Amino acid sequence: MIEQPKPSALSEQVQNMIEWLASYGGDGKGGVTRLLYDPAWRAAQQAIKSKMEELGLLARYDDAGNLFGRIDGHDSKAPVILTGSHIDTVIGGGKYDGAYGIIAALIAVEYLKTYYGLPIKPIEVVSLCEEEGSRFPITYWGSGSITGVKKREMVRGIKDANNVPFEQAMHAAGFGTMQHPEPKRIDLECFIELHIEQGEVLEREKKSIGIVSHIVGQRRYDITVFGESNHAGTTPMQWRHDAMFTAAELIRLLIHRANMEKSGLVATVGRIDVKPNVGNVIAREVTFSLDVRHSDADKIHAFCEECFGEFEKIAAQHGTSIVCEKWMDESPVAMDSSLSAAAENILKKEGISYKTMTSGAGHDSQVFGTYCPAALLFVPSRGGISHSPEEYTNAEDLQRGVRLLIAMLHKLAY
Amino acid sequence: MIEQPKPSALSEQVQNMIEWLASYGGDGKGGVTRLLYDPAWRAAQQAIKSKMEELGLLARYDDAGNLFGRIDGHDSKAPVILTGSHIDTVIGGGKYDGAYGIIAALIAVEYLKTYYGLPIKPIEVVSLCEEEGSRFPITYWGSGSITGVKKREMVRGIKDANNVPFEQAMHAAGFGTMQHPEPKRIDLECFIELHIEQGEVLEREKKSIGIVSHIVGQRRYDITVFGESNHAGTTPMQWRHDAMFTAAELIRLLIHRANMEKSGLVATVGRIDVKPNVGNVIAREVTFSLDVRHSDADKIHAFCEECFGEFEKIAAQHGTSIVCEKWMDESPVAMDSSLSAAAENILKKEGISYKTMTSGAGHDSQVFGTYCPAALLFVPSRGGISHSPEEYTNAEDLQRGVRLLIAMLHKLAY
Repeated sequence: MIEQPKPSALSEQVQNMIEWLASYGGDGKGGVTRLLYDPAWRAAQQAIKSKMEELGLLARYDDAGNLFGRIDGHDSKAPVILTGSHIDTVIGGGKYDGAYGIIAALIAVEYLKTYYGLPIKPIEVVSLCEEEGSRFPITYWGSGSITGVKKREMVRGIKDANNVPFEQAMHAAGFGTMQHPEPKRIDLECFIELHIEQGEVLEREKKSIGIVSHIVGQRRYDITVFGESNHAGTTPMQWRHDAMFTAAELIRLLIHRANMEKSGLVATVGRIDVKPNVGNVIAREVTFSLDVRHSDADKIHAFCEECFGEFEKIAAQHGTSIVCEKWMDESPVAMDSSLSAAAENILKKEGISYKTMTSGAGHDSQVFGTYCPAALLFVPSRGGISHSPEEYTNAEDLQRGVRLLIAMLHKLAY
Repeated sequence: MIEQPKPSALSEQVQNMIEWLASYGGDGKGGVTRLLYDPAWRAAQQAIKSKMEELGLLARYDDAGNLFGRIDGHDSKAPVILTGSHIDTVIGGGKYDGAYGIIAALIAVEYLKTYYGLPIKPIEVVSLCEEEGSRFPITYWGSGSITGVKKREMVRGIKDANNVPFEQAMHAAGFGTMQHPEPKRIDLECFIELHIEQGEVLEREKKSIGIVSHIVGQRRYDITVFGESNHAGTTPMQWRHDAMFTAAELIRLLIHRANMEKSGLVATVGRIDVKPNVGNVIAREVTFSLDVRHSDADKIHAFCEECFGEFEKIAAQHGTSIVCEKWMDESPVAMDSSLSAAAENILKKEGISYKTMTSGAGHDSQVFGTYCPAALLFVPSRGGISHSPEEYTNAEDLQRGVRLLIAMLHKLAY
């Protein structure tokens, strides 16, 4: 184990920097909104660029708007150890989601540079331009551009809620015109991301760090039940083809089965839309969302097949019909086992409690994970709350994450 | 049985008058919109007033906007035989709902006057000003004003969707200023209403006339499930308090139990509102409507009590909570059995098929029924469709209803 910074000093530093970064796009009520290429986003990236330069890092953008701060290694030809997270937020999001991974990387590199000088391999801190999909209907634009998973033609024609085309917003922010280098990188050794959990597993199990083994795969469906509208008073029960009744049966079945599974599968119906949605009219059409996640794609497949088979029987009984439209099918992504083992060793030596777990939420690490070894490390989220001004991680937990990152980078780059 | 008009001539007359009245407020696409006191409503009432005068009836409004056409009896002190229905419609409604009862009454009185001269007791045709509640949040304003169930102070402060106060609209149409007599009547012997079924019982059972024994009672509830919002990916199933899951269980229970009942009870969940209603967020709050109807108030009560008892158990299992807010509780209303028997006798003699049934929808007859003997008589609705431009009753069925009304009025007034 390397010489460790004083926890109390580190706690204060990380908290101060969380507040500093949250001031860009802060709404004065604890919420933060930084949408891709908008003024708050630009100001935040510029502030981080200045901070990088202050710390003696070589700072530069790529043409997508990702920001890098590089500390060169003795072996300048060696592949790069990349660490960071995303700068964008949801609308009215918290101070920690994404921001924490960038701040932790800046602090870690500053510390290593101060105490250990230049590394052998270059380290780069990255402030990824976009992950959330909260302005335009595209996610992982930052990590996707770096890894080549997202291509420029994918944003042509897409617009934000105010009808601003993606490329117009990109140009206005100074990107997409080849003033900066191409985003695609071929010189990465690995990617390490520190992130808040956004769930309450660590808090409930009283663990300080989560080592992510897999980011779950997920399928999303829109399921529509077609019945027959009729008068609530004049239509006897036996003649009804009530889309709401069928939908209730299907939702109950889905959640009940997911509850019975003990494999960690999660299934959620969060949205429902009813036509005509009037109290005294039998529903003719009900559409509901289905979100199913697991670290094993086969488990997701089996769950859906089994439920959809039952759907047909229920619909036949009710005289209704069902259409299941799958609009997302993402495979699970494994994190790199030797990076995870390195994290585990460090935590064991330090006596910091941890849990190996899956991530039920998507992260940039899943994009990097299909391209280079990647590690995703969690710190606890109070009450599991995220994407909200209530998002919070205490300073103690924040500094433990930074110390882990320092030790990981030291092991990998020095 | 009295001498009957020729069915073919009657069919043509009733169809012509349906089209004539539908031209007031017609949208050119088969739909009709006449909202209380609006220009189409005023034009329709004026047209009926002129028609009444043409037929030699003494026509007058009351101060609520109800329109009466009177044929005096030899015994002018005798209580009045009142017949008619409502002139107002829902938005984009059909040509038959309400209108048919007014038209049938006009034709019947014209026929009786022509062939039998003056009756012994006075007969009045009424075009009731409002039943649907489609402009202002009040229903049965017409029949309620006549029977004294609805009082003037009940409309103070209520507004339409454009924020027009009820009384302002009333004054603009020339009512509510005591230019016309007080609506409250104390001189009614009975009320007879001919109406389309708005259900498909008569059509399915191939009956020409429905004799309504009861108008069902109904309760309406808003049922809210309170759970806990959380991330669809990061929250294991066992820690969830999913308001959507609870709601699905409750809706399924309600409809399943109603299906098991063989007493004619109907229960409908037609509306659902979810917070936040986002596919990847576990619902924190779900509100759904419940509409329960039966001709026996005790059955409604027992059904609700039984289901709500189960609700508590389900919520306890899910760690959610439930609030059931009852906002309507209308008692069933019996129609007058001797008027129904009179109708039955006429139909038997004429060899017209009929069915004694309950009405699952509300009608002005239920307001009159608490105040004086009332009869509600149905003709079939094609496919049970109502409140739609698709609303339709064939001319054959329409004329059978008119013939029944002629015979009833003859029996009662001559």
